[in-house]
Amino acid sequence: MTKYTKAMAFPEVSIDIISEFEAIIGKENIILDEDLRSEYAHDKTEDYHFMPSVVLKPGTTDDISRIMKLCHENHVPVTPRGAGTGLAGAALPTHHGVVLSMERFNKILQIDELNLQATVEPGVITEVFQNAVKEKGLFYPPDPASSGSCFLGGNLSQNSGGPKAVKYGVTRDYVLNLEVVLPTGEIIWTGANVLKNSTGYSLTQLMCGSEGTLGIITKIVFKLRGYPQKSVLMLIPFITNEEACRAIAAIFTAGIQPSGMEFFEREAGIKTFEYCDKVLGSPVTTQLPEDMDAYLLCELDGNDEEVLMRDAERVMNVVEKFQSGEVLFAESAAQKAELWKVRKNISPAVNWYTLTKSDDVVVPRNNLPKLISGIKEIGNQYGFNTVCFGHLGDGNLHVNILKESISDHDWETKIPEGIGEIFKLTVSLGGTLSGEHGIGIAKRPYMPIAMKETNLELMRGIKRVFDPNNILNPGKIF
Amino acid sequence: MTKYTKAMAFPEVSIDIISEFEAIIGKENIILDEDLRSEYAHDKTEDYHFMPSVVLKPGTTDDISRIMKLCHENHVPVTPRGAGTGLAGAALPTHHGVVLSMERFNKILQIDELNLQATVEPGVITEVFQNAVKEKGLFYPPDPASSGSCFLGGNLSQNSGGPKAVKYGVTRDYVLNLEVVLPTGEIIWTGANVLKNSTGYSLTQLMCGSEGTLGIITKIVFKLRGYPQKSVLMLIPFITNEEACRAIAAIFTAGIQPSGMEFFEREAGIKTFEYCDKVLGSPVTTQLPEDMDAYLLCELDGNDEEVLMRDAERVMNVVEKFQSGEVLFAESAAQKAELWKVRKNISPAVNWYTLTKSDDVVVPRNNLPKLISGIKEIGNQYGFNTVCFGHLGDGNLHVNILKESISDHDWETKIPEGIGEIFKLTVSLGGTLSGEHGIGIAKRPYMPIAMKETNLELMRGIKRVFDPNNILNPGKIF
Repeated sequence: MTKYTKAMAFPEVSIDIISEFEAIIGKENIILDEDLRSEYAHDKTEDYHFMPSVVLKPGTTDDISRIMKLCHENHVPVTPRGAGTGLAGAALPTHHGVVLSMERFNKILQIDELNLQATVEPGVITEVFQNAVKEKGLFYPPDPASSGSCFLGGNLSQNSGGPKAVKYGVTRDYVLNLEVVLPTGEIIWTGANVLKNSTGYSLTQLMCGSEGTLGIITKIVFKLRGYPQKSVLMLIPFITNEEACRAIAAIFTAGIQPSGMEFFEREAGIKTFEYCDKVLGSPVTTQLPEDMDAYLLCELDGNDEEVLMRDAERVMNVVEKFQSGEVLFAESAAQKAELWKVRKNISPAVNWYTLTKSDDVVVPRNNLPKLISGIKEIGNQYGFNTVCFGHLGDGNLHVNILKESISDHDWETKIPEGIGEIFKLTVSLGGTLSGEHGIGIAKRPYMPIAMKETNLELMRGIKRVFDPNNILNPGKIF
Repeated sequence: MTKYTKAMAFPEVSIDIISEFEAIIGKENIILDEDLRSEYAHDKTEDYHFMPSVVLKPGTTDDISRIMKLCHENHVPVTPRGAGTGLAGAALPTHHGVVLSMERFNKILQIDELNLQATVEPGVITEVFQNAVKEKGLFYPPDPASSGSCFLGGNLSQNSGGPKAVKYGVTRDYVLNLEVVLPTGEIIWTGANVLKNSTGYSLTQLMCGSEGTLGIITKIVFKLRGYPQKSVLMLIPFITNEEACRAIAAIFTAGIQPSGMEFFEREAGIKTFEYCDKVLGSPVTTQLPEDMDAYLLCELDGNDEEVLMRDAERVMNVVEKFQSGEVLFAESAAQKAELWKVRKNISPAVNWYTLTKSDDVVVPRNNLPKLISGIKEIGNQYGFNTVCFGHLGDGNLHVNILKESISDHDWETKIPEGIGEIFKLTVSLGGTLSGEHGIGIAKRPYMPIAMKETNLELMRGIKRVFDPNNILNPGKIF
């Protein structure tokens, strides 16, 4: 378990307050039992573990409003929580107190086919929502690797992306309006259900990526698109990572707009194939081309087969100017699904192999070759191996640092220094700390590498405006 | 001239402070002469007129930092100003003091073709930038009607849209990173030059649409796209406004994604044809189909001629289910340019005909028929005529209320009540006050119709964090 310095002191949650919670949501929606509570003490970030004093499972906006008023008045810290799939520790109760689980907010309230909008509760699983709108021919593109279990509210709070972001944008690009309970218990709508809005500061956009520190999201209005009818998926092998990165930049400068441009190192592929076989029990039938160090999954989508095939040819023409191997075209829907399964399971596979610290750096696309070679050098210097993969079409690289045989002491002292070096390199290349996972507690110590103290002071100031008693998810981001 | 209550008291700009300005930017960049100053007392909003005490024309970020420090310490109000094309009065010095003109910040600093990004100063004219990137095969889609004279910094401050927004999004969707001088004189970058960013609250997004109240933008990093090679432009007449609106909704639900979906009433067309002839001296050669009340300009763009023609056919198939006239296909680049010239000159034409108050309401697309018929009813009730036009593909309707023979007294008392009714109707239809022009001073009194006092208090709180002495563009938005 990582050390985490408790900067703020909060009182314990008293028996009186617990009985007030009972009056609001009933005993059946309150968890006090230690074993059950400990399920809410961790997420998917390293091996972090912070016990909440109590877990509340409210069912309505009004429940949350009453809970927040009570906690605000009594200075009880509240940590909102989605599905617990986060990779930055943003949903962990570092100051104990209340975990507010949004698991009962699991309803799709409306799919408005005439206006191409949907209104949902934040505890809907991303994939459930994607499938519900797809049934009506509509498309919700944000697609984090954890889409089968993560919640839409969590996606919004971390501003998640996924493989489609390269063409279709990230979660913030699909959020039109939000119902939010402020830390003081007041309920607001942040905007309106419209595609354009220049009516004061965008509180909607401010909520996106605020990691549950400014308010509890209770309803989300998303915009939707028409579902693209056709797609082509190619697996393109390269002899080195750098060569793959150079090819990516060239594909974009050739004017091609892929709907997915995913990268993984050979090591990531091998571990994931093994994981699919041994853990998931569904071995991958596609062969990974040999003697190659890096692979691109390049997807094109649209409604016109001919246009797609022409674009695929243009991709091939670009790629053959680089040191690449034979391109594999996915031949069936099943093979496409299998390749995406591999991509989505890289992170679980690497974490099954060994404990990791996971980074999520992002740079201008053309600087990717320098970033990857620099990361490998830093690894050599600090004595760690990395597995690199991610959404390189938008310059977003996931770097999993492997614990393997590194001692616990080095893991907690020396490795974080190496991570600091990775971040310094990223910023020197025009990039920043997180593309889509957020800062939470895992990246918080590194924020001064990415920005001036003035920026952090502005963020703290905004936080105070929303949450004068600093009870909502304290100690995150800054 | 409209009445404007001065809620805050600021000291006059003293001779001592003027000499400090001289030390920073030189006498040649300071305007004290009354006639010259009065050029900075108005924009394109009604007949508003507010005299600045002094106009400063800084040339560097450092100039602005020193000016802001001085003004912050001495409580001198500062109103940043772009090209003065705004329609909400956001750049008017309602509290006198300094107008900070950004006209010398007119350089395109870099067009990065490898990363599809550009870095510009905020005083670059939008069209100049569009053309510069187009020369390199790149596309900057935001395109306000005033693109030939407005500045990019102003576009960002008001979060401008234009006809391409329906497919490509508004200004905020193209802003990656900003250099900003805070009201205290500190200089920050708000983000990083990356396509995805989950690194703390998005100060970049917060600046977009903040109407010059949070900081002075001194550099902008935009993302760019590949320039679409081909387009089809159709002029589609309808017998009524409502029928046109219903057809718009149907085109989108048929899964077609136009790159422009502009609407204008017959009255707007007639006035603009006359304006092009008599004022611009370039008569329109295209005929406006007779016996029709409303017109759509529908543009499709892309890189594949066949796909465009197929989509155009699909539009025709939808349209013929409505009471529409013969569709005119623009036959040449010249005819396309002429039709766009008509669209872009509607607002100047109507303002040439009579003084107007201009609204910029936005609703979910499917509610447009109710919105337009409701506006006409309110006009009957309050005794004003309106000319309606705008970006109906994204539900954004411009409503010009005509002064014509209305008395000055009614214009200042009764008509604003009618505007309030239009806004109440808009909000009741799920919409809000402004899609792309902003709030400034013109819409400020109506903000409580769009949102709760709690929202306004949050915005005021954010303002205080950035600008503790409330010197930067005071009295705007809220």
